[in-house]
Amino acid sequence: MDHRYGVVIAGGSGTRFWPESRGSRPKQFLSITGAGKPLIALAHDRLRKVLDRDRVFVVAGAAHRDQILGALPDLPPGNLITEPVARNTAPAIGLAAAHLSAQDPEAVLAVVPADQHIGDEDGFARVLSGAFDCAGAGNIVTLGITPSRPEIGYGYIRKGASLGTCAGFEVFGVEAFVEKPDRAKAVDYVLSGRYLWNAGMFIFRADTMLREMARHLPEVSAGLREISTAVGTPSLAEVTEKAFAAMPSISIDYGVMEKVGGIRVIPASIAWSDVGSWASLYEVSITDDRGNVISGETVLVDVERSVVKTDSQLVAAVGLRNTAVVVTKDAVLVCPLDRTQDVRRVVEELRTRGRKDLL
Amino acid sequence: MDHRYGVVIAGGSGTRFWPESRGSRPKQFLSITGAGKPLIALAHDRLRKVLDRDRVFVVAGAAHRDQILGALPDLPPGNLITEPVARNTAPAIGLAAAHLSAQDPEAVLAVVPADQHIGDEDGFARVLSGAFDCAGAGNIVTLGITPSRPEIGYGYIRKGASLGTCAGFEVFGVEAFVEKPDRAKAVDYVLSGRYLWNAGMFIFRADTMLREMARHLPEVSAGLREISTAVGTPSLAEVTEKAFAAMPSISIDYGVMEKVGGIRVIPASIAWSDVGSWASLYEVSITDDRGNVISGETVLVDVERSVVKTDSQLVAAVGLRNTAVVVTKDAVLVCPLDRTQDVRRVVEELRTRGRKDLL
Repeated sequence: MDHRYGVVIAGGSGTRFWPESRGSRPKQFLSITGAGKPLIALAHDRLRKVLDRDRVFVVAGAAHRDQILGALPDLPPGNLITEPVARNTAPAIGLAAAHLSAQDPEAVLAVVPADQHIGDEDGFARVLSGAFDCAGAGNIVTLGITPSRPEIGYGYIRKGASLGTCAGFEVFGVEAFVEKPDRAKAVDYVLSGRYLWNAGMFIFRADTMLREMARHLPEVSAGLREISTAVGTPSLAEVTEKAFAAMPSISIDYGVMEKVGGIRVIPASIAWSDVGSWASLYEVSITDDRGNVISGETVLVDVERSVVKTDSQLVAAVGLRNTAVVVTKDAVLVCPLDRTQDVRRVVEELRTRGRKDLL
Repeated sequence: MDHRYGVVIAGGSGTRFWPESRGSRPKQFLSITGAGKPLIALAHDRLRKVLDRDRVFVVAGAAHRDQILGALPDLPPGNLITEPVARNTAPAIGLAAAHLSAQDPEAVLAVVPADQHIGDEDGFARVLSGAFDCAGAGNIVTLGITPSRPEIGYGYIRKGASLGTCAGFEVFGVEAFVEKPDRAKAVDYVLSGRYLWNAGMFIFRADTMLREMARHLPEVSAGLREISTAVGTPSLAEVTEKAFAAMPSISIDYGVMEKVGGIRVIPASIAWSDVGSWASLYEVSITDDRGNVISGETVLVDVERSVVKTDSQLVAAVGLRNTAVVVTKDAVLVCPLDRTQDVRRVVEELRTRGRKDLL
């Protein structure tokens, strides 16, 4: 019997794609990679390459329920698990584990973020199959992305000794999950060959995860036990709401991964990007012959390596290099691509001005 | 008796302020200098400092009639002289001369473009009074702007010998009107001290101008004579339409000024600009403490020496230098200020695409 399940974690908010991303429309709902689908639908489709329809689940905030069912027509509504309040990734992943272990005590889960890009989807499907095999034995497995540059925007995984292979993929012990490095450290990491990018993708038996949470996150675990008991009963929603209200907000990396021993990592070269800013669109989009990422009606005169997007009025750009111009119905952003991290300062200013309608 | 009249020539079209300027809303109707009034109203007000209300006239295309009366509540409707079709500045100025000489055979006209900026309005009023005095004797007089830089976007006037003073202003003969120079020539011109900018402002007796046109522009002159005869009769509109249809399209510089002898020039230092592009807004606008020209709702993060204007949605700009961002309801322009001459390429492309609604 197949005990494998896929879970898309769609909890993210974030403002790095402002003005396209908003509180009510976080990054995973944006169709920014040129594939014509929102990131969450692409994440879902990638799991569906390996798993049957009824085996792919989504965990998301209750407020996004309709948006998700609209974006994922293939998702059985019963496979959407909603969080009453956002409590970061540890409770979200615990919620999926509680639900699925109640349905199938031998459930093995592949948990993936909803807002990433993977260029090599077939490669992902293959390595995911290997990870399922490996996790079935009871270890938490993570996919570590082979780094292509000394990126300072990602966390890293330091791999240890080779522990053999799973379904043809070499598996390593994890020595440490390490925080985002500075530039010099990032260069050392990449040159050493011992570090992989932490993509936040984890594969594990549900009972393994629940056991580790019981050990390291007792406040989360207590709530999950109540939820587990209520799965399949009319009181589930009420119990979940009460349990989540009492949980701390904590990430799976900090709450579990950095504390648990015996984690395995499978290196993966699958053209992955976390699509972290307008600048990262280059990694994940089809560009024109001058290196521009374009959508909507534009007139470009001598424009190169720029992002010019509008879902509102026509945009004319002259003589731009490495610049993002993003136009929505209620806001325009113009920003050099190497300054997109400062878009958050725009968002802060709008918050100060009380312009919630733009956030 | 006072024979002085002011005439604002509002024939201009042009696309250099696209997307704010359009075929239906040329530059003279834009309030781009921060004075809160369109350029044409500022031109009118400057003449009113010297002349009574009923002595200031406007020549404009018939299509702009309502727009002009709306922008100039002080203008007696009878003082708006409309051209049935645009025929460039020589016929427009001739039309004013024909009208005013019919009403007052000794009329002296000061003709000024509608779409310029003058920072020193009192200085302009003083030098204009001097020019009226000088022109009353029968010479065509022009104001030559003392150049502040080797501008290649303007035509120049080479001054000759000093011919004494008029009302305290030194008057020079004009040796030549010269075309826009290249950079090297412009530097020579400015260093020589013999060249002034041609601002297109002319002061002359109406009969003098009509006589020169009869000599140098017989096809224009023939029509003007018919119009002159019809002034004050019910057939004026019909006669004007027929006469203009038969006239060539020709500028006053090429058609008259470059051919006539005895023209006088009065040097003027009046903080003049022809407001020729978004970049020129710096010469004529109030900037914030980082050198930005701003209007509408904006969020600027580390933006300097830039033009950020919106009459539509909010504009957020991050890390810009020397850049124009102009947002209207139906178009957005982003362009470095040193590339604004290429805005015409945007306009050409829109014409090719048949987007008349944006032109």
